[in-house]
Amino acid sequence: MPKDRVYLFDTTLRDGAQTQGVDFSVEDKRVIARALDRLGVAYIEGGWPGANPTDSEFFTAKPALKRAKFVAFGMTKRPGRSAENDPGLAQILNASADAACLVGKSSEYQVGIALGISLNENLELISDSIAAAHKKFGEAMFDAEHFFDGYKANPKFTFDCLKAALDAGARWAVLCDTNGGTMPWEVERIVGEVVQKLGDGSRLGVHTHNDTENAVANTLAAVKAGVRQVQGTLNGLGERCGNANLIALIPSLMLKPWFAENIDVGLSEQDLTHLTATSRTLDELLNRAPNRHAAYVGAAAFAHKGGLHVSAVMKDPRTYEHVPPETVGNKRHILMSDQAGRSNLLVRLTEAGITYDTADSRLNALLDDVKQRESEGYSYDGAEASFEVLARRALGQMPEYFRIRSFRVQVERRFNAKAELVTISEATVKLDVDGQTLFSVAEGNGPVNALDHAIRKDLGRYQSYIDDLRLVDFKVRILNGGTEATTRVMIESADGQGNRWFTVGVSPNIIDAAFMALMDSIQWKLLRDGAQPSK
Amino acid sequence: MPKDRVYLFDTTLRDGAQTQGVDFSVEDKRVIARALDRLGVAYIEGGWPGANPTDSEFFTAKPALKRAKFVAFGMTKRPGRSAENDPGLAQILNASADAACLVGKSSEYQVGIALGISLNENLELISDSIAAAHKKFGEAMFDAEHFFDGYKANPKFTFDCLKAALDAGARWAVLCDTNGGTMPWEVERIVGEVVQKLGDGSRLGVHTHNDTENAVANTLAAVKAGVRQVQGTLNGLGERCGNANLIALIPSLMLKPWFAENIDVGLSEQDLTHLTATSRTLDELLNRAPNRHAAYVGAAAFAHKGGLHVSAVMKDPRTYEHVPPETVGNKRHILMSDQAGRSNLLVRLTEAGITYDTADSRLNALLDDVKQRESEGYSYDGAEASFEVLARRALGQMPEYFRIRSFRVQVERRFNAKAELVTISEATVKLDVDGQTLFSVAEGNGPVNALDHAIRKDLGRYQSYIDDLRLVDFKVRILNGGTEATTRVMIESADGQGNRWFTVGVSPNIIDAAFMALMDSIQWKLLRDGAQPSK
Repeated sequence: MPKDRVYLFDTTLRDGAQTQGVDFSVEDKRVIARALDRLGVAYIEGGWPGANPTDSEFFTAKPALKRAKFVAFGMTKRPGRSAENDPGLAQILNASADAACLVGKSSEYQVGIALGISLNENLELISDSIAAAHKKFGEAMFDAEHFFDGYKANPKFTFDCLKAALDAGARWAVLCDTNGGTMPWEVERIVGEVVQKLGDGSRLGVHTHNDTENAVANTLAAVKAGVRQVQGTLNGLGERCGNANLIALIPSLMLKPWFAENIDVGLSEQDLTHLTATSRTLDELLNRAPNRHAAYVGAAAFAHKGGLHVSAVMKDPRTYEHVPPETVGNKRHILMSDQAGRSNLLVRLTEAGITYDTADSRLNALLDDVKQRESEGYSYDGAEASFEVLARRALGQMPEYFRIRSFRVQVERRFNAKAELVTISEATVKLDVDGQTLFSVAEGNGPVNALDHAIRKDLGRYQSYIDDLRLVDFKVRILNGGTEATTRVMIESADGQGNRWFTVGVSPNIIDAAFMALMDSIQWKLLRDGAQPSK
Repeated sequence: MPKDRVYLFDTTLRDGAQTQGVDFSVEDKRVIARALDRLGVAYIEGGWPGANPTDSEFFTAKPALKRAKFVAFGMTKRPGRSAENDPGLAQILNASADAACLVGKSSEYQVGIALGISLNENLELISDSIAAAHKKFGEAMFDAEHFFDGYKANPKFTFDCLKAALDAGARWAVLCDTNGGTMPWEVERIVGEVVQKLGDGSRLGVHTHNDTENAVANTLAAVKAGVRQVQGTLNGLGERCGNANLIALIPSLMLKPWFAENIDVGLSEQDLTHLTATSRTLDELLNRAPNRHAAYVGAAAFAHKGGLHVSAVMKDPRTYEHVPPETVGNKRHILMSDQAGRSNLLVRLTEAGITYDTADSRLNALLDDVKQRESEGYSYDGAEASFEVLARRALGQMPEYFRIRSFRVQVERRFNAKAELVTISEATVKLDVDGQTLFSVAEGNGPVNALDHAIRKDLGRYQSYIDDLRLVDFKVRILNGGTEATTRVMIESADGQGNRWFTVGVSPNIIDAAFMALMDSIQWKLLRDGAQPSK
């Protein structure tokens, strides 16, 4: 039986842009649109032309798309105006786009509270606006705001709103759970009723929000009940608790029972392997640390910790993995933990690309060292680069690039020449490369920053390797409480090639702990890029 | 019709402890157990006695619980041993607990791959182990690992495993979606079949994982289909993509259609208002920034950004809110009018015991200052002592005790006389008391510790007031990511009279931020103890 086509509609650039703290530039929007087009979604909603300067400019500077249609969002016309004479609607109709998506009320309660017009007038607004958009673009969509809440209270009126849009030529009528409070079993029931009334769901879409953590489930329930367009955002971006997360939806729609047999979302198996990279691209643009626990694409999504799990996964990954990680472009991770046995260690070494002889007695010393360090507060679960540096050093596989002889960090708060109270952070580092001693001194806006600047100011012939190294996150945890407690510093680093790695340092002294993590980060980068050892 | 009781089973301290990067101390576990007990869950799974030193110690040091039962987790006995002669099982049976929850295989595939025994032998393992636990505790539970995957492949054998546990006396048989790959519609179908075979679901539980972002929906589907125990964790903590999130489940189970009418989870409306605080307690312990977008409890969960939304919400919050935020202890966030901000401020001043004249123009300056500081990252909600110092200073009610003229902190890592690599932290402070300048220098095991020692080494005639001041906790959070980001330091102080107070400092420089928080702490203590101002 041929599969039904389900159309993916991305609204990262419109509804996702409503997220608190998110502020896309035009260039950001271009990068995201290209990534979405490569992934293979059917529609990209670019924004609301006329609502703000960024969106207006983006519609004049959108990138060339190979697969996706480009959609302009807007509102149905205002009451008391014709569609031709509504300046807001005109901006959408005049936008350079392949289709328009217009949002309007479909709930009796909202029409009364927010618009204060009659129900019939609301049907006219929808009908006239959709007809105008259909005439202009050939493809119009109607976002039925508050559809589910409206339907629960007055199913007839809410259904009439959908019908008005469809009868006026809308390709799609989209059922919105605007407030995000609807339960999956309600979605299933209501969509089922609407599909039955219309004969099928081939012109219905669904748009959900995550206010009860059910946005993905609500979307899946709607698809199973018949809708054939799915709206969502990358990584579930969106106001309040976010929109339905396309990154979690796409693999379930492609790989899971019933969906895999009955529908086709238009992505190939090869396209699906871009999923993890697409998710990370958005985080990169937002300068956010990716969510390690994200479904399918998180760094921990295929991580295995307990010893029993690990030995089973080694026998057959299906024992503890619901899909193969490589199908979505992700990777398996075997973690070290305080219960780490020798077999865990060997797996980890192999995963890190480290070769070893199982008879090598240094393996046992390494295992003891890892256990000892973890009891002191090191956490190699989250700091694979530090683990690799430690392991290679224990096994005689870590080149010595440079050696820090000493450092000094000074923070001083005093009055400057203008009698202003200022705080100055300065670091001095003395290090050896190829038998030569190099001195560096640098300032920073804090002691760790100054130390980072000083270490990286002059690494001699290694300098070119670390020019593109950036510290993207820095986390401090006090392990025992009190200023005399042990401090753990975790550093996340990135380079110009899109690599990200994590390192850890532990010490009663926060500067010392940060220093250790910084050193591991630099040495891991030199190792990965194949720098030659110091002479 | 009386409602069915649904029992909440929290496994934050056991399955949640498997999370990458999470490493609970015994004291952490005690704090979390108390918070769970106050919230009102029915069961708290404390850990796996014998699996690691932390869990073993926690079972000897668990806090007194008022409402929840305390559960020990473990595995069914190993093949080839009797339940009496299995040392692993013995550790669980000897643990101080109200019930035991034993995990065992319930999938033909897993029995073959992981255990390599016959299906009948597996049924015996379950039966013998559960019988032993039932005999010891009076309440035994069976976690049917890989239940859903097993049932899809061989429903008869998987059901037989459940039956073996129930027939051996298990109060609960828990249906686990161990790999997290099952879709909600599959959960609904499979649970429906099992409930039908058993007659009802009064002895069934459900345990889901979030690998497809459906853990909450899968749990809700299982409850609707008849299970009466729900396992999950605070904030969805757990390995890979996490467990079902109790923080999102509880309000849906209490407030949403069908659930509100048909089941009772054992929490009162008053208990539910602790939800947000409980979620934040866990983040606080893990030193994680709370997820602003978390369902129900996120800071953005009831935030309204768009102008249209805000004006509708002002007319009636139900227009864009699916539940009232205060039911879960959360708050609505709208860009506050100055009037609203001002009334908030007056409430806080009164709460701090500060008197004021409402006509005092300094109140507006204070309001602007607080808003500005909060936008920079200060959080006065958690640092009332810093708020009091700031407010009293703005209103001319803060005596000047001493004035810091300058300080210098130095951290040096070098080889000492014995050729050992050492790190030395030293701080120098210059301060004025009664017109006299006092110099102090002190060492510490880190820069903040050295600074603290130096400031408190000689405060002249104020010395006696601070002799009993102790820093009991010190938390650092990086607000924007990267070493160049802003740092917030929160300090918790205590004195010999049992007082505890919190202060905050924010700066790009961690030493500066710590200094501000230290200064507020000392000054608040002098104020509270009625020290006389400097002359």
